[in-house]
Amino acid sequence: MYDILKTINSPADVKKLDAGALETLAADIREALFNRLTKIGGHCGPNFGIVEATIALHYVFDSPRDKFVFDVSHQSYAHKMLTGRKNGYIKDECFAEDSGYTNPEESEHDLFNIGHTSTSVSLATGLAKARDLKGGKENVIALIGDGSLSGGEALEALDFAGAELKSNLIIVVNDNQQSIAEVHGGLYNNLTELRETKGAAANNFFKALGLDYVYEENGNDIQALIKVFQKVRNVDHPIVVHINTQKGKGFKLAEENREMWHWCMPFDRETGQWKFDFSAESYTSLTAGYFMEKAQKDKDFVVITPAMPMMAGLFEPLRKQLGKQYVDVGIAEEHAVAMASGIAKAGGKPVVVTNSTFMQRAYDQISQDVCINNNPVTILLNYCSFDGLTDVTHLGIFTIPAFANIPNLVVLAPTCKEEYLAMLDWSVEQQEHPVMIIMPGNVVTSRAVATDFNKINTFKTEQAGEKVAILALGDFYQRGQELASEIEKKLGFKPTLVNPRFASGLDEELLNGLAEKHRLAITLEDGVTDGGFGQKVAAFYAASPMKVKSYGLRKEFYDRYDPQELLKRLGMTTEQIMADIKSLI
Amino acid sequence: MYDILKTINSPADVKKLDAGALETLAADIREALFNRLTKIGGHCGPNFGIVEATIALHYVFDSPRDKFVFDVSHQSYAHKMLTGRKNGYIKDECFAEDSGYTNPEESEHDLFNIGHTSTSVSLATGLAKARDLKGGKENVIALIGDGSLSGGEALEALDFAGAELKSNLIIVVNDNQQSIAEVHGGLYNNLTELRETKGAAANNFFKALGLDYVYEENGNDIQALIKVFQKVRNVDHPIVVHINTQKGKGFKLAEENREMWHWCMPFDRETGQWKFDFSAESYTSLTAGYFMEKAQKDKDFVVITPAMPMMAGLFEPLRKQLGKQYVDVGIAEEHAVAMASGIAKAGGKPVVVTNSTFMQRAYDQISQDVCINNNPVTILLNYCSFDGLTDVTHLGIFTIPAFANIPNLVVLAPTCKEEYLAMLDWSVEQQEHPVMIIMPGNVVTSRAVATDFNKINTFKTEQAGEKVAILALGDFYQRGQELASEIEKKLGFKPTLVNPRFASGLDEELLNGLAEKHRLAITLEDGVTDGGFGQKVAAFYAASPMKVKSYGLRKEFYDRYDPQELLKRLGMTTEQIMADIKSLI
Repeated sequence: MYDILKTINSPADVKKLDAGALETLAADIREALFNRLTKIGGHCGPNFGIVEATIALHYVFDSPRDKFVFDVSHQSYAHKMLTGRKNGYIKDECFAEDSGYTNPEESEHDLFNIGHTSTSVSLATGLAKARDLKGGKENVIALIGDGSLSGGEALEALDFAGAELKSNLIIVVNDNQQSIAEVHGGLYNNLTELRETKGAAANNFFKALGLDYVYEENGNDIQALIKVFQKVRNVDHPIVVHINTQKGKGFKLAEENREMWHWCMPFDRETGQWKFDFSAESYTSLTAGYFMEKAQKDKDFVVITPAMPMMAGLFEPLRKQLGKQYVDVGIAEEHAVAMASGIAKAGGKPVVVTNSTFMQRAYDQISQDVCINNNPVTILLNYCSFDGLTDVTHLGIFTIPAFANIPNLVVLAPTCKEEYLAMLDWSVEQQEHPVMIIMPGNVVTSRAVATDFNKINTFKTEQAGEKVAILALGDFYQRGQELASEIEKKLGFKPTLVNPRFASGLDEELLNGLAEKHRLAITLEDGVTDGGFGQKVAAFYAASPMKVKSYGLRKEFYDRYDPQELLKRLGMTTEQIMADIKSLI
Repeated sequence: MYDILKTINSPADVKKLDAGALETLAADIREALFNRLTKIGGHCGPNFGIVEATIALHYVFDSPRDKFVFDVSHQSYAHKMLTGRKNGYIKDECFAEDSGYTNPEESEHDLFNIGHTSTSVSLATGLAKARDLKGGKENVIALIGDGSLSGGEALEALDFAGAELKSNLIIVVNDNQQSIAEVHGGLYNNLTELRETKGAAANNFFKALGLDYVYEENGNDIQALIKVFQKVRNVDHPIVVHINTQKGKGFKLAEENREMWHWCMPFDRETGQWKFDFSAESYTSLTAGYFMEKAQKDKDFVVITPAMPMMAGLFEPLRKQLGKQYVDVGIAEEHAVAMASGIAKAGGKPVVVTNSTFMQRAYDQISQDVCINNNPVTILLNYCSFDGLTDVTHLGIFTIPAFANIPNLVVLAPTCKEEYLAMLDWSVEQQEHPVMIIMPGNVVTSRAVATDFNKINTFKTEQAGEKVAILALGDFYQRGQELASEIEKKLGFKPTLVNPRFASGLDEELLNGLAEKHRLAITLEDGVTDGGFGQKVAAFYAASPMKVKSYGLRKEFYDRYDPQELLKRLGMTTEQIMADIKSLI
């Protein structure tokens, strides 16, 4: 097992192999992929599809002198195996040594921490520009999937490279005819035309941007790839190497269902069964349920997603059912948000849904295209919690600081199922405000709630008490409840418990009211406190005798942490907060 | 004077005119442009160049039933004149009635407040999508300049429109062969090829994205334009109408120097002399001086700008002198920032410079491409002050809330010339942190300062005192000085005056020290307080007896305000703050 892979300690070892051994190496890498993915999950299809290209790249080029930039870097597993990190794949006890993305802390062969799409060409032009300033001669290679091409950052960079960078840059376009879900956008028709004509079509998107271009039909053939990479090595201008690959290659299930196997949970290799129970109700499944029902009742309702339908549980059959009321714009967050503003302006009822971290791409569009115009767009964000994705590139803990300080945007933080659905429906129906809704990151909870949100920034007192007021925002409401009951039990008085509901503004009347019978306000929020909700409360009371203690995460790029340990480290367990309260009152 | 223009109260009046009268109308509009621009300034070249196209659009289409979206909308003056707002151009006392951009509050013919580039196609697809959901039949027309095409949002939208929107959308590409400065990017070579072949080139950027395409060579010929617009009216799919126009048409100076006359101050029509004294030293001129000197001494130093060289005073001769050490990426903020990260990673010393509001486009790139990787990129922002640009789409008052909550980013707020230049040089030379520098918005001031910034978040006590501590950030430092001297004069004690220098973090040691001899901390910042600097200070002291009062702007989209009146309205004059202090101590 892994006979050839075990001999590879650096790219130099790849260069020693003959054609047959390179084929065995590819098979070894796939076995290693199975070993890791079946046990801890991760990006599946992208890694299976790029094995041959990765081998050929390391065979032809000379990393780390030559520099690779992997777009999203979710397809960098084989690269890691060939650059001294095979143990993270073949030895179960070493899995934690390797992140799922390129990581300069792991190896000099990784130039950047990357997890968002469409960045590779830009980053690579920077490496090339610095090389040129310094008089260097190394190759700079960006590897980008077809799905990532539609992102504005990639398009801007391709346009730049096509005229402004007049030196070596090799852009390998890994065309597997798939984004996360199916591809969307006009450029994909051009890629199809290019594949069908083996690169000879007169109309060529890359050439229209001024880029040189070569096509390789057999993107899973090591020898063919070696030949094309050797041809472009040391080229003196930017060139696109368009390679046609099979996503999921070598794993039948992933070849057949490319969307389902883009990313996977741990699974049984024989049956493909994921080791996870999907039957439980989740905020994602609730979202899909709401969308399907709403769309049928209201023809103005439309769901827009930048290539992340699964963030709303919209698998293919549901998307088909939504028909014209579902728009996947491809990986294009900026366009998704601005288009929604246009829809809202013209009387439609748009909801844009994606993962919180990716919505950062549309900061300016949220501010300018939507909020200045006060158009009633609903932006629904999944994975906003510290307890969600823990890779440094995918953190959702910046949601409130990033967006809740944009004027006119009403940011809602629901605390349970009933409130979530009521907020979603209220947002879609009202015509006054742009609204962002933070999907709770915890298990679905249920309780009776008030469902009128028309009076912006009205907080809800869920329990009236004395001395200590707990403002527990969004999915930290349950922590607030627990804290309230602990205070009553251990300190002998009943504190006030407030559900702020609105993360973007203060209920000044309620806060002034609290000042009478309370001497300490505790804020709890599921995210970074800098620029967040608690700091607004602190500032409100800052010139008054009311003390405020805000709990949340620190302004930091956490990476692959244990969520519960992190809370403890930050002094945020109920026990730790109790100790603080005792010392403050 | 204005004989025809005076008869135009709505687009219906345009449709009644014969060919000769339309020509006279164009001449009237140009006179009206001169009248406004010579007296109050504004966007010049873009408006002179688009007169004929605007007339033809209103002649052929039927606004507001048909819907126009103007990219940036800095070229919408003629549109305003034809839609009931001519007085804002021909009557000096009415200038203030019209903003320099489209504005739905002014007219039903304006769909959006727009001031950033590259948004029109996205917004228009949204209008089109809502129309399709509702079964409407109106035309949706986006007008976009060639310079704006390179922005990611526009590129994403063109890609989307080329395949996903299968209904009426007319994209008029106003090709005047100029961005703000000269154009940059591979697609401009394709535009050149298309112009040279009268649209017949086999390689066609728009067609490569799946868009239908027609070319009109005579973009300043009303009758030719009417013909081409009539041809595409009611088209049942997205189509690009590529028109070749002369920027600044009809104003010789603007035709000859398109960069200089893109935007203008009030000027003398005969001489072209701007009514403004440019000889005074400014932070912009200081920047240019630093850049030129630095570039000569250090070949690793490189200036990058997304089409805004004038934000660093880099006019053409200076850019030429910088040579390879100057990169204009075109309108492409995302790419500019990510490329800088690549340059920094490979040992270059990049400074990205633009206007604060446009940097919002690169929020995610600052966070992901730069800050997670901790690459030493310097981001230099102009127009961050409440006292700078006052159009709602160009406010710089969100700089701190938008960026200073991103981990790893060191945000510096210089208080005078010496500190500004020292911070700039420190940032360029250090290799530890991504740094953002807020260019002061006030007149250049001078004083001796500490120039070591290696210990991040060390504030500087400029005057040690008692009772009240004033933390006066960046270009509000001078207001802090004034307040300190007023306190000493009127209240009879010497307060402490702190220059925080760092807007992105706190000097906890210094703040703890202040707690001993002070009972009130005053924070002053030139921007919105929500998510800003003062709230961090308030949160720091929130559980202690120290009171904090933070002064800054409210979270609001202010529009065309008088800066000094705004300060007064917000209770931020020295007199008003003195009154607050008296009541608080």
